Amino acid sequence: MEEIHFWIGVIATIAFAITGVLAIADRGVDIFGVLVLGVITAIGGGTVRDIILETPTFWSESQMYIWLALGASVLTFVAESFFTQPQIYRWMLYIDGLGAALFGIAGADKAWNMDFGLPLGPVILGVVTAIGGGLLRDILAGRKTLLMSHELYAIPVTLACCAYVLILNFSPQYTIEGSMICMLGSFGLRAAAIYWDLRVPKIFITKTR
Amino acid sequence: MEEIHFWIGVIATIAFAITGVLAIADRGVDIFGVLVLGVITAIGGGTVRDIILETPTFWSESQMYIWLALGASVLTFVAESFFTQPQIYRWMLYIDGLGAALFGIAGADKAWNMDFGLPLGPVILGVVTAIGGGLLRDILAGRKTLLMSHELYAIPVTLACCAYVLILNFSPQYTIEGSMICMLGSFGLRAAAIYWDLRVPKIFITKTR
Amino acid sequence: MEEIHFWIGVIATIAFAITGVLAIADRGVDIFGVLVLGVITAIGGGTVRDIILETPTFWSESQMYIWLALGASVLTFVAESFFTQPQIYRWMLYIDGLGAALFGIAGADKAWNMDFGLPLGPVILGVVTAIGGGLLRDILAGRKTLLMSHELYAIPVTLACCAYVLILNFSPQYTIEGSMICMLGSFGLRAAAIYWDLRVPKIFITKTR
Repeated sequence: MEEIHFWIGVIATIAFAITGVLAIADRGVDIFGVLVLGVITAIGGGTVRDIILETPTFWSESQMYIWLALGASVLTFVAESFFTQPQIYRWMLYIDGLGAALFGIAGADKAWNMDFGLPLGPVILGVVTAIGGGLLRDILAGRKTLLMSHELYAIPVTLACCAYVLILNFSPQYTIEGSMICMLGSFGLRAAAIYWDLRVPKIFITKTR
Repeated sequence: MEEIHFWIGVIATIAFAITGVLAIADRGVDIFGVLVLGVITAIGGGTVRDIILETPTFWSESQMYIWLALGASVLTFVAESFFTQPQIYRWMLYIDGLGAALFGIAGADKAWNMDFGLPLGPVILGVVTAIGGGLLRDILAGRKTLLMSHELYAIPVTLACCAYVLILNFSPQYTIEGSMICMLGSFGLRAAAIYWDLRVPKIFITKTR
Repeated sequence: MEEIHFWIGVIATIAFAITGVLAIADRGVDIFGVLVLGVITAIGGGTVRDIILETPTFWSESQMYIWLALGASVLTFVAESFFTQPQIYRWMLYIDGLGAALFGIAGADKAWNMDFGLPLGPVILGVVTAIGGGLLRDILAGRKTLLMSHELYAIPVTLACCAYVLILNFSPQYTIEGSMICMLGSFGLRAAAIYWDLRVPKIFITKTR
């Protein structure tokens, strides 16, 4: 179990760094910008979560995640033309969705275990863990953030974090199974959105004037 | 006294969430963006203040504010056409100004009581509490921030926080009266700015080139 | 030694505030915006560093830096036409580069002494100290950030922080000399970039599409 989480975390960090760099690469960013934005995409959400939790930043205790993000960013810089192939890019999107699903549940779990602002706190910090890095990247790169798109990206994570908090509260004996199911549900919804190009239905969007 | 503060806090949180959502609604934001940006407008400033103060985020101890902000955001999403009526919107601006006045003094008060960086610290954190949430919303929504407008919004708050710190320092026996007067002064100035559409005089603005 | 650092810190803070204000002055910013953006440019990076380090913000313990930044910002507002003279502005750029060099090494040093996430932590926080304030200013002012330019600004700082961490690790007996050399190297590279208008070579920039 631990091991599965570990490996999904490794894969997710790499995928976040790669998709993070790809998202800004077409603007002509230098290698320093690539490294910073790749790393921030991968570890920014968890960093903000840890700041709000008043706990040491996770990467100050285990730097593996930064090394992974640095490596993946350099790789993406060098092999950009490989990763921008439609087929490969699509794969990256799926892995990125898997990463968001894991990071969301992992963030909620950490907040729950620290007794942080139950019941809303873990949901909020799960979402922050999953999308915070991408938001920071977009702000620093001057891009429109996820919040202003209509992508089905954060909503699956939010629903899964809500479900996970309900499970932790009402059926704590099913924590492990619950975390797996919530993660799969979150990923499944995101994968469906990528596959069928689903977006937030118009009825849930404010009218532009 | 406590009770008055409590109720102004409740009203201010709701007003911040409503004006926060209204500020970005015309760009076609989905319900997730509405919730996040509404909540961030309402509680973002206090969150940044608490992070700088190294004290637990206020909403981790009392989630009422988040529920209020969530509720007000959903309400604004559903009843957008009600709130955008000029008459109602104007009312919201006044209540928002009252909220900023209260949040400013409350933020300065919290920093003062924690002995944080006297005398400048409480002024800075009062201003952060009052305008931080709006700044975060504008950054995430890709809007021009308050700092680049010439609105008389932050200046009344800043002056009131300065006055309040002077009172706390030189006439601590008048803390309660002082906080009320500073709040009213801050709100009065803001209300005058809304009513007469006052802006920062040209002489206090850098020349564009 | 201490004294040299102190004076470079004073000069750097003033230079950061001045160049910070000059960077946004041409957009027509009011005096409140000038003060906030000037102060944030000067102390924002160190503030973020201290938040990540979970240590009291440096300016809560010594407010001199804020007063200096406030004074320099007002001065720049009043005497804008003086500072925008090409000759003077160029001087400011050099002093700003000296400030970045010092802030980088000072930030890395603080993280190292707190045993924060060795070996990568001090490098990251050194860079954050040096460029964080400028990034915050640009985000709040709606400008393109440094990360999206191709200026040789952050790279010298990063290299110097890496070198300094290596010295701290392998030759701790040369800490003082090492810090001076790294600072001078960082400044020298930046000064060369200003003088000859050097930028990041094209080969280190992603291709725009």
